[in-house]
Amino acid sequence: MAAEEKEARLEKMRHSAAHVMAEAVQSLFQGTKFGIGPAIEDGFYYDFELPRALVPDDLPTIEAKMKEIIAANAAFAKEEMDKAKALQFFSDQPYKLELIEELPDETVTIYRQGSFVDLCRGPHVNSTGNIGAFKLTSIAGAYWRGDEKRPMLQRIYGVAFDTQAELEDYLARLAEASKRDHRKLGKELDLFSLHDEAGPGLVHWHPKGALVREIIEDFWKKEHRKRGYDIVYTPHIAKVDLWKTSGHWDFYRENLYSPMDIEGQEYIIKPMNCLGHILMYKTQLRSYRNLPLRWAELGTVYRYERSGVLHGLARVRGFTQDDAHIFCRPDQLEAEVTEVVQLACFMLDTFGFHDYELLLSTRPEKYAGTIQSWEEATEALRKVLQCLELGYTIDPGEGVFYGPKIDIKLRDALGRLWQGPTIQVDFNLPQRFDVNYIGDDGSEHQVVMVHRTVLGSMERFMACLIEHYAGAFPVWLSPVQAVIIPIADRHLDYAHHLAGELREGGMRVQVDDRSERMNLKIREAQLGKVPYMLVVGDKELDSSTVSLRLRNGEDLGSLTASEFMSRVKSVIEARVPDKL
Amino acid sequence: MAAEEKEARLEKMRHSAAHVMAEAVQSLFQGTKFGIGPAIEDGFYYDFELPRALVPDDLPTIEAKMKEIIAANAAFAKEEMDKAKALQFFSDQPYKLELIEELPDETVTIYRQGSFVDLCRGPHVNSTGNIGAFKLTSIAGAYWRGDEKRPMLQRIYGVAFDTQAELEDYLARLAEASKRDHRKLGKELDLFSLHDEAGPGLVHWHPKGALVREIIEDFWKKEHRKRGYDIVYTPHIAKVDLWKTSGHWDFYRENLYSPMDIEGQEYIIKPMNCLGHILMYKTQLRSYRNLPLRWAELGTVYRYERSGVLHGLARVRGFTQDDAHIFCRPDQLEAEVTEVVQLACFMLDTFGFHDYELLLSTRPEKYAGTIQSWEEATEALRKVLQCLELGYTIDPGEGVFYGPKIDIKLRDALGRLWQGPTIQVDFNLPQRFDVNYIGDDGSEHQVVMVHRTVLGSMERFMACLIEHYAGAFPVWLSPVQAVIIPIADRHLDYAHHLAGELREGGMRVQVDDRSERMNLKIREAQLGKVPYMLVVGDKELDSSTVSLRLRNGEDLGSLTASEFMSRVKSVIEARVPDKL
Repeated sequence: MAAEEKEARLEKMRHSAAHVMAEAVQSLFQGTKFGIGPAIEDGFYYDFELPRALVPDDLPTIEAKMKEIIAANAAFAKEEMDKAKALQFFSDQPYKLELIEELPDETVTIYRQGSFVDLCRGPHVNSTGNIGAFKLTSIAGAYWRGDEKRPMLQRIYGVAFDTQAELEDYLARLAEASKRDHRKLGKELDLFSLHDEAGPGLVHWHPKGALVREIIEDFWKKEHRKRGYDIVYTPHIAKVDLWKTSGHWDFYRENLYSPMDIEGQEYIIKPMNCLGHILMYKTQLRSYRNLPLRWAELGTVYRYERSGVLHGLARVRGFTQDDAHIFCRPDQLEAEVTEVVQLACFMLDTFGFHDYELLLSTRPEKYAGTIQSWEEATEALRKVLQCLELGYTIDPGEGVFYGPKIDIKLRDALGRLWQGPTIQVDFNLPQRFDVNYIGDDGSEHQVVMVHRTVLGSMERFMACLIEHYAGAFPVWLSPVQAVIIPIADRHLDYAHHLAGELREGGMRVQVDDRSERMNLKIREAQLGKVPYMLVVGDKELDSSTVSLRLRNGEDLGSLTASEFMSRVKSVIEARVPDKL
Repeated sequence: MAAEEKEARLEKMRHSAAHVMAEAVQSLFQGTKFGIGPAIEDGFYYDFELPRALVPDDLPTIEAKMKEIIAANAAFAKEEMDKAKALQFFSDQPYKLELIEELPDETVTIYRQGSFVDLCRGPHVNSTGNIGAFKLTSIAGAYWRGDEKRPMLQRIYGVAFDTQAELEDYLARLAEASKRDHRKLGKELDLFSLHDEAGPGLVHWHPKGALVREIIEDFWKKEHRKRGYDIVYTPHIAKVDLWKTSGHWDFYRENLYSPMDIEGQEYIIKPMNCLGHILMYKTQLRSYRNLPLRWAELGTVYRYERSGVLHGLARVRGFTQDDAHIFCRPDQLEAEVTEVVQLACFMLDTFGFHDYELLLSTRPEKYAGTIQSWEEATEALRKVLQCLELGYTIDPGEGVFYGPKIDIKLRDALGRLWQGPTIQVDFNLPQRFDVNYIGDDGSEHQVVMVHRTVLGSMERFMACLIEHYAGAFPVWLSPVQAVIIPIADRHLDYAHHLAGELREGGMRVQVDDRSERMNLKIREAQLGKVPYMLVVGDKELDSSTVSLRLRNGEDLGSLTASEFMSRVKSVIEARVPDKL
């Protein structure tokens, strides 16, 4: 409760900071028209129509003005005003007028501090002096009411905290997050690209990024096979009729691409992999003895997202789900979900995510299946989470219409949550497609389907990995594991000989044989986040050793190639970062 | 030349057989209307409009009648007839009338034998007695003139050869081919399925088929990495504008699917992978020192094919090319193509295809690029084939519009040719997309692109593999390599223990622990084309051995698990069939 109270208090303070910013802008820019200025996570913003475009240099000026206002410690005064008077009062503020006209009540509330008056429900702090440490962070364009047909206003974002220390801590985390931004690192490390020519949100995986992805996929496949999964492939297009039968055409229409015509039939590009798996299931009569069937697919699906919300690899229009469908009997559901949750946790742990939040989402208002089947399945999921002693939160009514689900969110090195694995029970598709098995009673029963991913998607997981490790992947995932740096040309043969030896041992090694200075080569290998730099000069050549540096700059002295190899092997097998 | 003469002679004889069949049908079915009846590869057909639907039992009756006509040895007599008279003569034959009306000449040719007269240019054998050994093979529906809006006629297919021995040999090969039909085996071995509900020509890979595919893909990736290829992933959709720039929108429109709309932009599903690779190439300035770049992708592409020509995995609408693009300097072309041809031959050999035909296709009438660049590239390809001492045929004018190419066709166990690897030089895309590198002179030069596959596509290659091996894949490719068959329940523990041991060694093993008789289990494992059956009973349990049978029924006696394992290992490593 204390956390919620603090949040409410901060929100009030941040909202007040927005008003103070508006007052500052008003005093600096004659004729400013005001949009809205709410509190948001960590801070606030305000939208303005201004006589000229803002530039970054304006922010310190506005901040200085805000500090004056805060120092003056003017009171926030609340007033009620009848609507007609308010329309009069705000007559030169067209956006406020629009808001007032839409208000249902006959009186409106305004807040006044110093020379600034705003249409506002509040609440606010008592006076401007109660505003803590703040900083204006950025300028952006924003359509009035988010409508691209309305005027484009100028938005100023700010952040505010109780203390200067908290503000500084926040800004430091922000700077760190920006250094780790996967879009920036993806370019610097040559991992992937996106192209307006091809279309936004469509990822092109460059050799190094593709290699990391392939290592993840190979590991994923091996771990799935171990656990009794079979891997399948299904096509990327199918007749739209299938999606009408499934209900997706009605329920997810806004995320589907428009159909293409083939010989007078409408086809769409698949938004999910389940229907192909169902068609394959139905090619044979299945007995209760054959269940569960666990069919996994690294299936690339396409869903519409507005171009405005696309974000690097984290939010895209085409993505490869590490998908699987489990076809099981109702009495097998609990055991199956237990294994999936364990697999998901094992996967996240292996990739270095040891902190995650579990959510159990229950029956929404609109649902398929019977209440009894929902209760049984939800109870099964709950029991799994309890038996595994995993803390979880209930997300009431947030299940998908077709069944309850468990979502796992992982926390990265900066403490941010990422959507990861999901485990969804489905009563809808088995019923719509008659997905049955012959029970031990000789008659047909409906299977329970589980949709699940244990990473989420290759794209989002890769984004998360990049930001978690700031691009410095653990050795087993590093596209280049070691760079051999010969000091002079006479060390080249030795360098290539070493490279061959390490490659024999299964390592991914490059020789930097350019005619550049050693220091530049080391710096570039560090920028490339290569775990190991092996410098070879006269001393190393004579003693058949290498001089080893880590990407963090640490110098580990000299050792023989085989010593290095055997120590790296254990680091690779343990799937840990780069320490030897 | 002798071969061509023989072919012409056979064609004449087969065409005459079609007339004899028509005469037989005429005498058996009152009021038959005749379509056309040409010679085709190995035989002939004739299309009829008949008073009732034909059934397979009609074929022997028609054959018997044909034999009477042949025994009568009636002469084929040629006559010229003026068009008006011909229209009169064929007045009750509407299809013939349509053909006559379209003939430009004033006189037409007819052929008469016995009671049958046909509109026909000939040539024919002298008399019906010159027709060799024949057999009617099937009945099919065929639209008049291939137009689905015209009437559906009934087509009878037949085959004909000089001698009875040749006919029998052909029929035996046909029977063998039908036993090996990948569509039939794909179902029996549970490898893949196609579904009208999803759309024809879209392959769903079941667990066992997907496993074979994955083994092939893993091998393919390893061999490519060894040879300096990098592997990439690109999306399945892109803005149609890209395909307009490339020229595909104009040149291949009939194979492209109709666009889908995303935020008012038109996108299509990709028919080839090259454009994504080009966009990635262009994310950096490339130096002559960086070339060649070899970027490979197991890229799934979608192309329109008429539903009538689709055929199992061999001709589909969506397929995964084992694609790569080489970006190189002109002076590197010869070396690059040499390596690709060698890789292609290595691949085919590894998969058991030791006999193939190479075709070098040269400049067509409509072409991109300069004559000089065509000549240089064609000369480079020619030199490669000569230096490698590979026999090849020139296919004049059959290059793609963008450059010359080498196609490799592989011959399967039944002697049939399959389209396999292709290596295509491209001058068009580098020019249209400005794909350049900085030369050692400091200025920009256009790269040469090579498009290549070394298997063709995963789907067609799989079809070919299934038919070549009649489903009995070499051990390294077999989805299940061994089945352990316990004779009684008391041998179950031993069986599972053995399975564990073999799995540890990396083998794909199943235990058939059903309560069925041993003979049935052996038969089913043989039908499943499992290379090794390990029978374990009292004797084997006591002596810690297994009793080994091959899928061809051969009994290899008993050996210990470790003896078996070490011998299998060498078979797997050598990538050969099942002999130990």
